[in-house]
Parts: sequence; structure tokens; C-alpha cells
Amino acid sequence: MNRIRILVIRPIVNVPEELQQKRLDHLRRLAFSGTEIEITSIEKGPVAIETEYNAALAVPGILRKARQAEKEGFDAIINSCAADPGLYACRQAVSIPVVGTGESSHLLAASLGRKYSIITVGKQGRIPRLYDNVIRNLNLESKVASIRGIGMSSVLELRENLNKAKKLFIEESKKAIIEDGADVIVPGCAYFSELVAELQKELEVPIIDPAGAALKMAETLVCLGLTHSKIAFPCPSYI
Amino acid sequence: MNRIRILVIRPIVNVPEELQQKRLDHLRRLAFSGTEIEITSIEKGPVAIETEYNAALAVPGILRKARQAEKEGFDAIINSCAADPGLYACRQAVSIPVVGTGESSHLLAASLGRKYSIITVGKQGRIPRLYDNVIRNLNLESKVASIRGIGMSSVLELRENLNKAKKLFIEESKKAIIEDGADVIVPGCAYFSELVAELQKELEVPIIDPAGAALKMAETLVCLGLTHSKIAFPCPSYI
Amino acid sequence: MNRIRILVIRPIVNVPEELQQKRLDHLRRLAFSGTEIEITSIEKGPVAIETEYNAALAVPGILRKARQAEKEGFDAIINSCAADPGLYACRQAVSIPVVGTGESSHLLAASLGRKYSIITVGKQGRIPRLYDNVIRNLNLESKVASIRGIGMSSVLELRENLNKAKKLFIEESKKAIIEDGADVIVPGCAYFSELVAELQKELEVPIIDPAGAALKMAETLVCLGLTHSKIAFPCPSYI
Amino acid sequence: MNRIRILVIRPIVNVPEELQQKRLDHLRRLAFSGTEIEITSIEKGPVAIETEYNAALAVPGILRKARQAEKEGFDAIINSCAADPGLYACRQAVSIPVVGTGESSHLLAASLGRKYSIITVGKQGRIPRLYDNVIRNLNLESKVASIRGIGMSSVLELRENLNKAKKLFIEESKKAIIEDGADVIVPGCAYFSELVAELQKELEVPIIDPAGAALKMAETLVCLGLTHSKIAFPCPSYI
Amino acid sequence: MNRIRILVIRPIVNVPEELQQKRLDHLRRLAFSGTEIEITSIEKGPVAIETEYNAALAVPGILRKARQAEKEGFDAIINSCAADPGLYACRQAVSIPVVGTGESSHLLAASLGRKYSIITVGKQGRIPRLYDNVIRNLNLESKVASIRGIGMSSVLELRENLNKAKKLFIEESKKAIIEDGADVIVPGCAYFSELVAELQKELEVPIIDPAGAALKMAETLVCLGLTHSKIAFPCPSYI
Amino acid sequence: MNRIRILVIRPIVNVPEELQQKRLDHLRRLAFSGTEIEITSIEKGPVAIETEYNAALAVPGILRKARQAEKEGFDAIINSCAADPGLYACRQAVSIPVVGTGESSHLLAASLGRKYSIITVGKQGRIPRLYDNVIRNLNLESKVASIRGIGMSSVLELRENLNKAKKLFIEESKKAIIEDGADVIVPGCAYFSELVAELQKELEVPIIDPAGAALKMAETLVCLGLTHSKIAFPCPSYI
Repeated sequence: MNRIRILVIRPIVNVPEELQQKRLDHLRRLAFSGTEIEITSIEKGPVAIETEYNAALAVPGILRKARQAEKEGFDAIINSCAADPGLYACRQAVSIPVVGTGESSHLLAASLGRKYSIITVGKQGRIPRLYDNVIRNLNLESKVASIRGIGMSSVLELRENLNKAKKLFIEESKKAIIEDGADVIVPGCAYFSELVAELQKELEVPIIDPAGAALKMAETLVCLGLTHSKIAFPCPSYI
Repeated sequence: MNRIRILVIRPIVNVPEELQQKRLDHLRRLAFSGTEIEITSIEKGPVAIETEYNAALAVPGILRKARQAEKEGFDAIINSCAADPGLYACRQAVSIPVVGTGESSHLLAASLGRKYSIITVGKQGRIPRLYDNVIRNLNLESKVASIRGIGMSSVLELRENLNKAKKLFIEESKKAIIEDGADVIVPGCAYFSELVAELQKELEVPIIDPAGAALKMAETLVCLGLTHSKIAFPCPSYI
Repeated sequence: MNRIRILVIRPIVNVPEELQQKRLDHLRRLAFSGTEIEITSIEKGPVAIETEYNAALAVPGILRKARQAEKEGFDAIINSCAADPGLYACRQAVSIPVVGTGESSHLLAASLGRKYSIITVGKQGRIPRLYDNVIRNLNLESKVASIRGIGMSSVLELRENLNKAKKLFIEESKKAIIEDGADVIVPGCAYFSELVAELQKELEVPIIDPAGAALKMAETLVCLGLTHSKIAFPCPSYI
Repeated sequence: MNRIRILVIRPIVNVPEELQQKRLDHLRRLAFSGTEIEITSIEKGPVAIETEYNAALAVPGILRKARQAEKEGFDAIINSCAADPGLYACRQAVSIPVVGTGESSHLLAASLGRKYSIITVGKQGRIPRLYDNVIRNLNLESKVASIRGIGMSSVLELRENLNKAKKLFIEESKKAIIEDGADVIVPGCAYFSELVAELQKELEVPIIDPAGAALKMAETLVCLGLTHSKIAFPCPSYI
Repeated sequence: MNRIRILVIRPIVNVPEELQQKRLDHLRRLAFSGTEIEITSIEKGPVAIETEYNAALAVPGILRKARQAEKEGFDAIINSCAADPGLYACRQAVSIPVVGTGESSHLLAASLGRKYSIITVGKQGRIPRLYDNVIRNLNLESKVASIRGIGMSSVLELRENLNKAKKLFIEESKKAIIEDGADVIVPGCAYFSELVAELQKELEVPIIDPAGAALKMAETLVCLGLTHSKIAFPCPSYI
Repeated sequence: MNRIRILVIRPIVNVPEELQQKRLDHLRRLAFSGTEIEITSIEKGPVAIETEYNAALAVPGILRKARQAEKEGFDAIINSCAADPGLYACRQAVSIPVVGTGESSHLLAASLGRKYSIITVGKQGRIPRLYDNVIRNLNLESKVASIRGIGMSSVLELRENLNKAKKLFIEESKKAIIEDGADVIVPGCAYFSELVAELQKELEVPIIDPAGAALKMAETLVCLGLTHSKIAFPCPSYI
């Protein structure tokens, strides 16, 4: 295989440089030897994505970055948010593969067990419903055992309290396994990606690394010469 | 009942003044006596909505108009496109009811028969899949007999050729009834709203007027004192 | 709009005059200015509808009232029971719209949130399953978070103990929100209609007024010139 | 096993004596040696069941016959119509098993192949939708390949033209196999019961005998000491 | 009816002679007078079936027994395990009916109530998922209220502790009824067959006897002259 | 990444040496640089897999090879047949990842478009139903536009007539796109793997290479340190 160039687009603004670098390092460790990864954020939009409202305001920025990436010769784009904001729009905007972090995680989870649970931010009765779309687009409703929140109400709170988040994540995952019948765990937020190795030590079922899942899907598509169907995701007539 | 003030937001740009007026007249004819209707378009965005890409670029403009409408004291907002672009984001942005043209049409169709078909622009094998979202959000998949295209490839072509479109619409509707088992017809584009009265004369099954369906849903919600669930559509923490 | 004449048929016998008047007053308060409402009960049948058995014995009486209403020039009929007994038969019997109280409530709930719960009479493990039909006809199974009973075993007990019922209703609704993920509440019995305004004060999610929902659906259909599909609900060949 | 007494209730009026006897002979040939069968019709109701309207008017008569049968010591009741009118109401009215002709046929078909088609009266685009209920109650939607009509518009026309009906039935069954992927055929009308042996000679896939399927289900339940769940089908509080 | 000869194949090895005889006696008590039953086990394979792995190793032995049974003139074969190992393969191997114990139990349960629960071996979070296949082949997912384990981890433990198993079975069944909304109980293991009469005394909802359900299905098919569809289950080209 | 060792198990016997080598070459071309691939066949079983019967007889041989592969230190196993025979049993037998060719193809297809069609051997009305299991295990039923046969009745016929098969494959794919609404094509037989590059030239929608899809899934799992859930696929207690 030749060199593969992948651009990771984080659909948020103001990502601290250190977190950006941490993600990049994480991905480079997981990449195949021929894969080159770059990472960027959008210029205008939300600081975090917890609602369809946040997602909607991120999409124009993602589309801009995606078109630019195609021009610059990238082989694939990763939409780096577990809610896959604007994924289909983005596939219409360009002809190279556009991989969703949520979609890739859910597909992998669907293969690894019989039922998976999504563990994410939010309190009981107030869990973000952003994943509905990811699940429905793939029709995976009956593979989902449950969606559980760790009791932190926002992504930024999570980002600032990773140790506490890990503990809560383990607790909710265990409940998902015993009470809801889950046998695979999918983090509902890309910020968990770098924690998966540690979380895995505490749990006997597979946990998906969202960022890693997306990376592998991107490598797979480029390597097999595949891109998203232009009948499913046609180029827009109007811009 | 008191006076009800409704704002219709067309999520496109460059709507000819005459079409804007035509829609307004149409809606006013259908409104209950206490209802006041205003109509507006977005300032930046697509000229028509045929793909998720078009829809995504329309949403920021819709959100802006919606927040403004709430401030100006409107009682309800109608998202005036059969694909309901950004409907959930919009419900998160404001606290007054935000009614979808697609959603209202499909719900009415679900009640009027056993299976409905959507007749829209597009050629066989190239039908816009924008309605997937509307259908799935309501879980109405098995109420849909078929989605058929009239063979015109774009909304603007439709807008310029209404007479031809009417003829093709009737033809496809008849096929939907005989071949697909439809017993109700839902136009997949709001531009058909003003034609429904004429189309109805040619067909023995009910045809939904998308603009009318949305208006009645808006009046219903305001009159019953209802708005969309703030647990389902929470106010965003980040803007 | 011209005058609209709607007949509300309660599919039970022996409705106390005072309750009949209360419902009529309630509906008239919610009606648009051009709407005239009359209310009637069937002459032979059950005193309440809690089982398919009760429903079955109510239907011949409903059909009789419906045909009579059509002859008398009513524009629409409301089947005033949350279980919609004989709804499809009734639509076959006449050509004017026949609106179901259950159907109208569920459709509205489907639009107002992501998942709704039905709160009704009955004890845990003994909840009436009469709503299965309403839900399935509309294919709304996956929009339903749960069906919960308030622990009163009959509709007549409810009718006699409205204050206690209100308290229990609030309790079960809160459980539905927290434990089952509901974000909209649908009362499973039309007797709750007059209580909705008070219940709403105690709950942060929308509660549907079943009688009001049916009234608005009837007004909507008449105003848009729509009636139920005669292919879906054909006139019977044999009587 | 002891003697089993089964009552077959035809939910129609004016059944010619000769047809009644023909059905009885047919069932007796299929019965196990200890089974005694009697047959009856309702006293008031439709001459045939093609719509929910017809079905609704048949139910009170069925309920009366069913209660009487229980008092007379029958061990099981067969509701002898492929649309199972009032099946659940009937199970609430009595404590002995009440077997549906439609339900029994569909369950048998579900076991005999992967997808079954229902062949019934009606023209394309005008097929009775009476089976929706049977299919949905059992949740067998995705086992159904298609519902096809033989082009005769009524049950009475069928009854008078059995030879023509047989020919049309074979034709539609072959189309169901080739075009729709059916591998089992279920007649959508109990009048086909006596023809199944002949029809089977012309088709390479199993055809269910509706009357026979119901008889065997009744014998099965009585022999295993089973009756329908009283939690699912509770005795009505009101009569 | 003539004599019917049925072979029961237990897809396990080393069945104690006494248990084999007990099953045979049980079935003979339930059989119609013309039915002759023989019972056999496979020669090579697992001692119990709790995983797809066990099931897979049992199938070649079942296929051998099935082909032999057809040659010896049996009229039907019963696959005597609640997980129906190799059921479809077996139907392809022979032309006489091959009845599944799981399939027959689930179909009967689907008719007897609205939702059934499966009570089987296994601890919470470790319930065998062998029934998924049975349920999906029949598309009965939404008829299943729950699958519950009695806390014994293996079939052999169950076989050795029937009294304890009965007690635990009753407990879990009651939870299934109250907490999960079940109104029919299906044992998830054929070893419960002989206990059903006793279990039934303790529960107010019907419990299916798996072995009995399969016997009755076999008698039904032979008596009606039916066998499984050869289009659905074609003879294999290669052996 | 370190070296990854993958064993491809073809679940058939008598594979011509030349075809074995061709598959190996094909896979090595697609592999990442650190991946080592070996290929083997089973020793006893069918020459091709077209029915559940064939599949069942292949499984014991696959299980044997799988356990041996784990002992020999392979990192992952590929079950090299589009019907994934014994996939779940195999995952129970070992602790390294066992990748299905069918499963991997369908998951990739689910991501690349909105609806995919499976093109396989078989004539209309006689298409193998082996894929039902793959589709249901992943719950992808509604992502499948159609399953079409190329009119060749067996896998061996296909293997001998690849040029004719290619032509027929293109024809059926085009029909799937136009008539069934497919926007991605999945070959239903692993023998198409080496033809995908050529087929892709004739079709405007993505075609999945089944062998390639499985290889990439295996590389992905090993690279992310994942294996199938041991709660979902527990080690068998009995052998």
C-alpha cells in the first residue's frame, strides 16, 4: 500500500493545543505505517457538541474544512465527534471518503457482541439524544442495550475531570452489562478515546475507542479503493 | 381564543416576491379567523433544498430567524420546507413551538389512511432521501408505501413548470396507489401546496397540503397551550 | 372559514349529565370561533371501556350515531374514547372525517418529543392493552417509552376520585420521565382531559389533552377539506 | 386423551345449509378420533366479512354464541373467519380457549417457510386490509411476502364461482412465489378451506387450510390443558 | 386419521436411560390415540446445549438421525431441544416435517397472550442467547417481554436439582409477569417439560410445555398433510 | 504496529490449489505492510456452501481449524464465506477475533450508502436465504434494498464461468440500483472478491470486496487490541 493521508476535523472551536496534540499522538500510535494523519478544528462554531443545536452550528465549518481537505489531496476525512454532525452533508460536499466517529464505533460494536450500550455525559432522564441519528442511519436500534449518562452534565465538565469521569464510566458500564444486557461498550464522546486502554482494564467486555475506530475505517476505505456512494450522497446542485 | 401570531420561515434565499405572496395568500385563506401569519426567508443559504448539504447550509439562517421571532412575540414558527431542515436544533433554540412542514404532513397522512406515498422531484433511482429523517424521527417507516419522483431533477425546474409537474404528479400518484398500495399522497415539496386543490380533483385519495398541514399544527399547538418538550429538545449550554 | 359542525360521540352509556356538560364546556373553550360542537352518548353498550370486550359492545352503537350524524350534516365526528373503539369501522360507515381521541393524542405526542408515556388506569402487570391497536395502526411502537397504570383498577373508580387520580398521575408521570425516558405524557383515558391544565402545572413536559387533541384534528381536517381515504376505509358492500 | 368438544362459530348470517354441512364434513375428516365438532352461525350480522365494518357488526353475535358455548360445556371455540373478528374480545368473554382461523393459519405458515403470501378476494389496490390486525397481533409483518387479490371483488362472488376462484388463486400464488418471494401460501378467506387439497396439487409450496389449522390449534390447546392468558385477556368488569 | 409415526431426536449424548423413558412416557400421555412415538439421541456431540458451539457440534449427528428416520418411514421428526439446533439444515436434509421444540413453543406462546417471557438457565447478564435465532426466524422479537435466568449456570445442574429449579422458575416467572409485563411463560429448556403441570399450579398465566408443543405441531402437520416448504428449505446440491 | 498474523479458513473442501493461491495473492496485495496472511481449507465438509445444510456440515471442521490457529499463535481468524457459517460458535471456541466475511461486507456496505443489494447465485424465487442470518445478527434488515440472483444455480457453476458471471452480475446490479433503490452492492459469494476491481469499472456505486472487507476488519480488531465479547460469545462448558 502507498501512503495514505487522512485529515481529522474536530467540529468544535477553542480546542486546547495540548488536547489536540494528545489526540494526534494517540492516533499516530494506532495508525498503520503508511498512514499520515493531520488534525484540525473548525474556525467558527460551538466549543462542544451536546445538542442538535450545537451540531447544526458546527456543520458549515466542517463542510468548509472538508472541501479544502479534498483540494489539498487528502485521501479521507474523519469527522471527529461521536455524534457525527453533518456527516451526510459532508459526504455530498466531497468525493473522498468521510468517516464518522460515531458510525465507525457503532459498526464495530455491532460486530463485537450482541448488544452494546453507549456511555456518555448527562444525567438520568437528561441524556443527549444526539446518537439517535447515528443509530437510525445504520438501523442498529435493536443492537442497542441502553444509553446511559455518567451524571456529568457537560462535555467540558468531562474534559476537566477525566479521573472522576473514568470512575463513573466504569460504574455505568457495569450497570449496563448487568442490568441492561450489554456485552460491548461504546463511549458516547470522543474525549474518552485516550482513556479506553485504561478503562478496558476494569471491564471484561470490549470498549470501543471512538477515534481509533474512525481511523481504522478511514484506512480500510482508502486501502480498498472505496468511497461513499454518490447515488446515496449526491453532489449538491445548489451551493 | 385570542389572536395567534405565526411566522413562516422559508429556509431558502431569493424567493421571488410573487411566490412569497402566493404562499401567504394561500395560508391566510386556510387560517382560522384569529390567526395572523407573516412570512420570511433566510438571508444566507441555498436557493432550494434537495440534499442534506443544502439543508445544512440553511440551518444557521433558520436558527437566527427563529430566535428573532421568539423575541418579537410570535406564538409559533413554521419551518416551511418538506424536509424539515434543522427542526430539532430550532426547537432547542427557542421555547415557542416550531412546526415542521414535513412532520405535520406525515402525521396527517398517517391518520388519513393505511399507507401513504411521497411524490417528489427526482428520477427513479435518484430520489432525494431527505425525507428519511422526517420518517424516522416519527418512526413511520412502515406507513410509507413508496417514495416516487416525478422525473424532474430539481426543485427550481419544478417551480418553473408547474403545469407539467401537476401532470407528472398525478401519473406517479396513480402508480403509487395501484402498484405500491398507497391510499394517501404526501407531496415531498412545499411548492405543491398551492396545487393541492387542483390535484385533489384528479385523485380519489386524500392529498396533503404541506403548508396547510403545518399551519394547522401550529394553530393546534398554540390553541392547546402546548410547546415542544424541553427534555426532548433542551436549550443548548453552548452557543 | 365557514362554520364547522362537529359531533362528539362518547361510546358509553349512562354518562352523568353533569359530566357531559363539563366535557362540552371544555371543548367549546378550546374550539375556534367558527366551530359548533355537540355531544352525545350511545344508547346501548358498556358504562366504561377497559377491555376489547367493552369496546366491541360499544361499536354498533357508535356506528349508528355516526351514520345519523352524517345525515344530519355534521362535518366531522369525534370518537371520544382514548382507545378509539371501532375507529376504522366507523370511517367505513360514513364519508365525513371520523377522528379518534387516541389517534389524535398519539400523533400530537409523536411530534412534541422523542418518546411519550401513556398514563392510565390499572395496576402494574394489569394495565389495559387497549392502546396496542392505536399505537400499531400508526406504527408508533418505538415512540412509546412506557405504559403505566396509576393503580386504580377501573375508569369508574377514576371518575369518582379525580383528586386522588391527579396525584397518582403526577407520580407515575415523573417515574415515566426519570425511569423510562419519556419526554411527553399522554393520558390513556379521556376523563383526564379536563384535568390537563392542572396536571401541566406539576410537570415540566407537555401533557396532551386527549379531548382537545381530537377537537383540533377534526377542525384541521374539515378546514383543509380532507376526509379519510376511501381506499383505506372503503364503504362496506354488506350491511 | 378424553373426548374433546369444539364449537365452530361462523360469524356471518344466512350460511346455506349445504355449505354449513360441507364445512362440518371437512373438519370431521381432519379431526382426531376423540374430537367432536359442532358448527353454528350468528343470528344477526353481516352475510360476509370484508371490512372492519362487517367485522364490527358480527362481534356481538359471536360473543353471545361464545358465552353460550362455554355454558354448554364446550372445550374450545373456533372463530371461523380468516380475519378473526372480535378474537380478543371473545377471549375476554369466556375462559375456554378461543381459536382464531386467521391466527392459526398465520402461525402455521410462519413455521412452514420463510415468507408467506396471503391470497384473498379483492382487486389490485383494493385488497381488504382486514389481515393487518391478525399479522400485527402476532408481530409477523416481516414474514409476509405479499397480500394479493384474485380479482374477485367479494366473498359472495367467490362462493358462487369456486372453479374460477381456484384458477385465479393458482395464478396469484405463482406470482407470489416468483415475484414476491413467498414460499408458503395462506388463503385469506375460510371458504378456500375445502379447496386446499385440490389447490395443493397445482403448487409446489405448502398451502394452509385455514379451517384445518384452526381445528388443530383447538385440539392442541385442549389436549395440553392450555387456555388463553387471563392477564392478556382479562374478564371484563362491565357488561 | 391413520397411524402417525414420530421420531423424537434429542441432540445430546449420554442421556440417562431413565430420563429418556420419562420423556417418552410424558409424550405418550399427551399424544392422540393414533400417534406412535419413538425417541433417540445422537451418537456424537455435546452432553447439553447452552451455546452455539454446543449446538454446532450436535448438528451433524441430528442430520444423520433425521435422514435415517425418513428412510425408516417416520412421518415427522421432532428436534428435541428448546434452541432448535440445525433446524433449517435438517428441513433441507429430508422431506418429512421437522418440528422444532423452540419454534413450536414460541408460536403457541404468541397465540396465548400478548407478551411472553422465556425462563431458562443462566445468571443475570449471562443468559444464553441461543433463543435469538428461534425468535428472529419467526420475527417474534416484539412478542418477547424478557428472557430471564433462574441463576443456575448449566443445564446439567438443572437436571440434577429439579426441585430447586422449580422454585427458582416460579420466582423468575412472577418477576417476568409483574416487572416485564409477561402474560405467558415459555421454559427455555426442554427439561422443564415434565414439570409444567406442577409449575402451572403455582402460576396464573399459561406455561408452555416445550415437548408437548412440539408433539402437537408434529401431529398437526402430518394430519393436515403438510411439510416444510421446499423452496424455503431446498434439498442441498452438495453433500 | 507489530506484525499481525491472520489465518483465512475456507469452509469448503477440494479448493483447487490455483484458486487458493489466487485468493492469497489478492489478500496480500490488500494487506497493510505488517500483516502476514495464511490460508487453509477444512478437511471434511461440503465443496460449496449454498444452504444451511452445507453450512452445518462445514462447521465442525472450521471449529477444529480455529482452535488449532489459536494454539499456533495467529492473531485473528477469517471465516472465508459470505454466509459466515458457524461464526458465533467459532467465536465461542477461541479467544482471538473471528471475523466473518459476510458480516464485514454488510457493515461496510451499511456505512457506504443508504441501501445495499446483495447479488449472488440463484434464480429468481430460488435465491439462497443464507444471508438472512448475517443480516439479522446485525439487525440490518432495513438497509437491504434487495437480494438478487444472477441466474446461475450453483457456486461451482459460477466458479467455472467467471466471465459470464461478471456480465450477469453487472446486469443484476443495475436492476438493483434502478428498480430496488440500492446505492451499494455486496456480492453474496466470496468468489466475487477477485472480480470486484473489474466490476467496479462498470458500476457507479461502490461494490464491496468480501475478502478484502474481512481482511480489513481483522487488521482493525488486532490493531485496536479488540476481540469479540466473551459475554456475548462465552466459552462453552461442554465439549
